[in-house]
Amino acid sequence: MASHFGDRLFAAVKSKGTMLTVGLDPVAERLPEEFRGGSGDVASAVEGMYNFCVEVLGIVSPLVPAVKINSAFFERERWKGLEVYYSVIGKAKEAGVEVIGDVKRGDIGHTAGAYAEGHLGSFEDIVLPDAITVNGYFGADGIEPFVETANREGKGVFVLVRTSNPSAGSLQDFTDSRGERMFERMAEVVGRIAEEQGQIGKSGYSNVGMVVGGTSGEETSSLREKYSKVWFLVPGFGAQGAGASDCVRFCRADGTGALVNSSRSIIYAYENEKYRSKFGDDWRGCIKQAVLDARQVLLEGMGFSKA
Amino acid sequence: MASHFGDRLFAAVKSKGTMLTVGLDPVAERLPEEFRGGSGDVASAVEGMYNFCVEVLGIVSPLVPAVKINSAFFERERWKGLEVYYSVIGKAKEAGVEVIGDVKRGDIGHTAGAYAEGHLGSFEDIVLPDAITVNGYFGADGIEPFVETANREGKGVFVLVRTSNPSAGSLQDFTDSRGERMFERMAEVVGRIAEEQGQIGKSGYSNVGMVVGGTSGEETSSLREKYSKVWFLVPGFGAQGAGASDCVRFCRADGTGALVNSSRSIIYAYENEKYRSKFGDDWRGCIKQAVLDARQVLLEGMGFSKA
Repeated sequence: MASHFGDRLFAAVKSKGTMLTVGLDPVAERLPEEFRGGSGDVASAVEGMYNFCVEVLGIVSPLVPAVKINSAFFERERWKGLEVYYSVIGKAKEAGVEVIGDVKRGDIGHTAGAYAEGHLGSFEDIVLPDAITVNGYFGADGIEPFVETANREGKGVFVLVRTSNPSAGSLQDFTDSRGERMFERMAEVVGRIAEEQGQIGKSGYSNVGMVVGGTSGEETSSLREKYSKVWFLVPGFGAQGAGASDCVRFCRADGTGALVNSSRSIIYAYENEKYRSKFGDDWRGCIKQAVLDARQVLLEGMGFSKA
Repeated sequence: MASHFGDRLFAAVKSKGTMLTVGLDPVAERLPEEFRGGSGDVASAVEGMYNFCVEVLGIVSPLVPAVKINSAFFERERWKGLEVYYSVIGKAKEAGVEVIGDVKRGDIGHTAGAYAEGHLGSFEDIVLPDAITVNGYFGADGIEPFVETANREGKGVFVLVRTSNPSAGSLQDFTDSRGERMFERMAEVVGRIAEEQGQIGKSGYSNVGMVVGGTSGEETSSLREKYSKVWFLVPGFGAQGAGASDCVRFCRADGTGALVNSSRSIIYAYENEKYRSKFGDDWRGCIKQAVLDARQVLLEGMGFSKA
């Protein structure tokens, strides 16, 4: 493992030939029959989630540079779910992908430091993610403790700047008298930390990045040029409605600089008639084809015509 | 247990005669000697945290209406810590206080719903908190799933509006062309949800509240009058520097309407020379006296002269 998260991402995107990442959002009731268990208790739910995630990792890991694992779906099953969350992270590292823990944690000072240790630190018995997402509403002193831990561990942090949900704009587009929006102010705070407190790798990228939804309007596009050393994590591709061009605008011309994430459109591809009609009950085939299709659509979005 | 969180808080503040709440932020290395264990591993760390919290609950529960348990310090020990977090919640409920899970979770749509289930839902085997804190940077559709679960379960939600840390203002005081600040915009979103989507109890309070730091400036004081049906959770009293008058300004004249939280000043009172000089190694005595002192200071801050 190289020592700098931004460099590892750069190498991974180059070697896999795509900026696509797959989000693991396992909901027990939506899993293929064989993972649903019979007893309906927590133990069988988390076992099904774990086994499903391991199978999905086997299918997608050769095809993408990174996976994003959302802790919410594991925390729904409380500590037993969180144990499985860490186990899935370990399996993802074994499978050779960068792992983003989508935990959206945030707090102040020494409390943020405690979250950072539990989610980015190093322990003998388990593997923690390469990076996590952070909610920066607290301002710089709520972000910096995460960056300190990331620096020490060769890891990364993605701070929420402009999210992909319908009501994001009601707060994040809040505009001051000079025409500056809240998300731009947040981006300034994060951009300064990325350059001054974070670490810039040989690839030219910082280990501190930003989350910007593909569904956000044209006004977010200038972030790419303005924060040239930052990796963007771009949710919203697929089920949430963002198209390829909405997402790849956060990439540099070489295809690096942004990770475009798709979760439900891929891991639940077997619910989609488009894939069912071709693969029937072969849910693995559905998922693999959905990854290949998403890769192709993103490549075309970048102006390349073939994989 | 009454069915409405706002009503339960109202009754608890009235019966305990104070708006003081105690925050449980257990850091393994700062605990009294007897809880520090010898082996330095996760199992002994979480055992010490659990035993310490149970002892603290025994001391403080007769004296305060609620406790706030910060998940960060438990998550630092990963899933084993989270298991203990839930165990401590169960013990706090047995001790007869309202329990606020200070988890500061936030996400969008169905993902927020997954967090809500894991942190506010109901399960046969364990007790979950009466309320949790939520980071509302996503806007209304990131808050509403938490409120839906809270409504169904007779529970509550406190959304971060203006936090107590030094750099909070850099983002939360961001001001628009009409002079409205970001935290005021956030308060509008939360206030609307509190009245329209949340439930108003017989006490007149909603089950949806706001977090406003005692350390925040005079500009936050008008929130009390403006959002008359809302409970405020006020961190920052004590170690973070807010005095009694900075905090009780969020109470109504009857002393209800705000919970004023103190964490480190109380649970680590045995580190304070003021208490050590009187109680020596009796850390229990230090903690109890710190609670009594904080109660008294808040009462005086309200203009009452005696407990």
